[in-house]
Amino acid sequence: MADSISTRISQIAASVLAGDLRLGARLIRDLDDRTELAESVLGKLWPHTGRAYLVGLTGNPGAGKSTVVDGLIAHYRKQGLRVGVVAIDPSSPFSGGAILGDRIRMQRHALDDGVFIRSLASRGHLGGLSRSTGEVVAVLDAMGFDIVLIETVGVGQGEVDVVALADTKVVVTVPGLGDEVQAIKAGILEIADVLVVNKADREGADRTVRDLMTMLELRKTDAPLGPNAPPTEVEIVRTVATRGDGISQLAETIEKHKLRTAHFATARRRTRARRELRETLLDRLLGRIDALLERRADCVAQVENRQVDPYSASELLLAELFSETSVRPTP
Amino acid sequence: MADSISTRISQIAASVLAGDLRLGARLIRDLDDRTELAESVLGKLWPHTGRAYLVGLTGNPGAGKSTVVDGLIAHYRKQGLRVGVVAIDPSSPFSGGAILGDRIRMQRHALDDGVFIRSLASRGHLGGLSRSTGEVVAVLDAMGFDIVLIETVGVGQGEVDVVALADTKVVVTVPGLGDEVQAIKAGILEIADVLVVNKADREGADRTVRDLMTMLELRKTDAPLGPNAPPTEVEIVRTVATRGDGISQLAETIEKHKLRTAHFATARRRTRARRELRETLLDRLLGRIDALLERRADCVAQVENRQVDPYSASELLLAELFSETSVRPTP
Repeated sequence: MADSISTRISQIAASVLAGDLRLGARLIRDLDDRTELAESVLGKLWPHTGRAYLVGLTGNPGAGKSTVVDGLIAHYRKQGLRVGVVAIDPSSPFSGGAILGDRIRMQRHALDDGVFIRSLASRGHLGGLSRSTGEVVAVLDAMGFDIVLIETVGVGQGEVDVVALADTKVVVTVPGLGDEVQAIKAGILEIADVLVVNKADREGADRTVRDLMTMLELRKTDAPLGPNAPPTEVEIVRTVATRGDGISQLAETIEKHKLRTAHFATARRRTRARRELRETLLDRLLGRIDALLERRADCVAQVENRQVDPYSASELLLAELFSETSVRPTP
Repeated sequence: MADSISTRISQIAASVLAGDLRLGARLIRDLDDRTELAESVLGKLWPHTGRAYLVGLTGNPGAGKSTVVDGLIAHYRKQGLRVGVVAIDPSSPFSGGAILGDRIRMQRHALDDGVFIRSLASRGHLGGLSRSTGEVVAVLDAMGFDIVLIETVGVGQGEVDVVALADTKVVVTVPGLGDEVQAIKAGILEIADVLVVNKADREGADRTVRDLMTMLELRKTDAPLGPNAPPTEVEIVRTVATRGDGISQLAETIEKHKLRTAHFATARRRTRARRELRETLLDRLLGRIDALLERRADCVAQVENRQVDPYSASELLLAELFSETSVRPTP
């Protein structure tokens, strides 16, 4: 019985490695449902991951990220590269919160098995989003996709964390979004390796580029020095993605960033591995915490009634959590 | 020595309870820095919390949430209520990502000690935001503020979680944001108790109200039944917050929701207590996880090198985490 499960795991892993799109899609779905089988398969795939180059794209809703992604897909396909996409932007046509026109436009890749698009809901518990993204990326990576584009809307810590996983981080903006949105952008600007001003044929594009350059200057001044300092040469690319303008220049800029930071590649992979491990641990521990809180509803009630404060209660529960699984002294 | 610390803790707690704004602000800062002293003080304050009514406000950047908040502050002050505000919206003038004009407008409450505004950065580790918010709310609550308004931008799971803490959840929108933003709103619409169409003098306000009503109808059909079903009578209020129009109607609608759901108050407080406990536990465990990953850099390296997959590695590390603190059998 155990043997037949183990055989099944190996078979699925082998098919996914051979690039079976249907099984790959199924595996991603099962990982989302957190089945043990799926985790075992991913365990088998793990040795074959770490090859894909990850490009994260983020920016305001309405900045045209998906059109940029669409352009990049077409560009990389022409170069013979296989492209995976993970879309976590609720406003992205890839992830289904779509404007019909965009969605139809995307269809041009639907029959190309060199392109594989998965969407992830921006939901679930703490850190769940970035863990799920890591898992989907690992599957695409194992399936032999050369480039994985991760598209997310650039608001919210969870979303920023997801893009922070990527090797090259692209922030897409557009002219004329107004000051309030600029304020939000300040947070994601910090992680940008490449800045895209999309819809650059619009009025105000020059001003947007100037504003971004000013922000980059400020960032340079603030940046930490030393061996961990991020490479500060952030390039700004203008695109009109609907016409395909600037897309090849964007791809070149991404390539340049890749080459310029090649010596950081191991450090980035190490950070990603650490994060994946951390989030798997967290997931396991959350399961235990929730079971504990379920069992100790009396303790929750005491906190609610203001008899015990959350700090004292958590000390108590932690002690219980650790002693319950410990090796007890034999009498 | 221990005695003098304990005396100091009691003194600070007593002053905060007496409404000392300066010490309250200091305590909030110290909680953010996670000092042990601050946690002990909050422990002392805990029995005196659970009285304030929490109103959460969320919505798209640019919807005018802070102007609505500003209007509500003025309204409640006229009724003689003391109002605390926790702002987590990076685009909010309260939290400093400000447009100058708005910030100046807010100054009118600066000298009123019945109003206390704190901002929180939308940053930090998983769940950190909602834990911090819970702590700030507890301090304001203990200081005797009758109403606590929690303002956050409605994108990102972390931000939604924060608003979900509130007794009444208000979602603010404006006419003419376009379809893409509507898509984002769908996610936060689910948690709304009251919907505000701000800038209701703008063209398209009627259409926005109609669209929202349609969405509410759909939600009603989807809603779970039974004792845990949310009250589905969501009201829509039109405001022009810059002129103060509709603010008293909004306050009335909030009050109506409060009365209508009074029998849920204990359940909501229970949920909040559970969450506060869960996040405190999580915070403690994350500290242990990070220390473990630091110590077992070899294990992280093996995951990075693809020698071990994250699942197997996490099983190993979990075993280590639990055995290290366990009672070992005596020989």
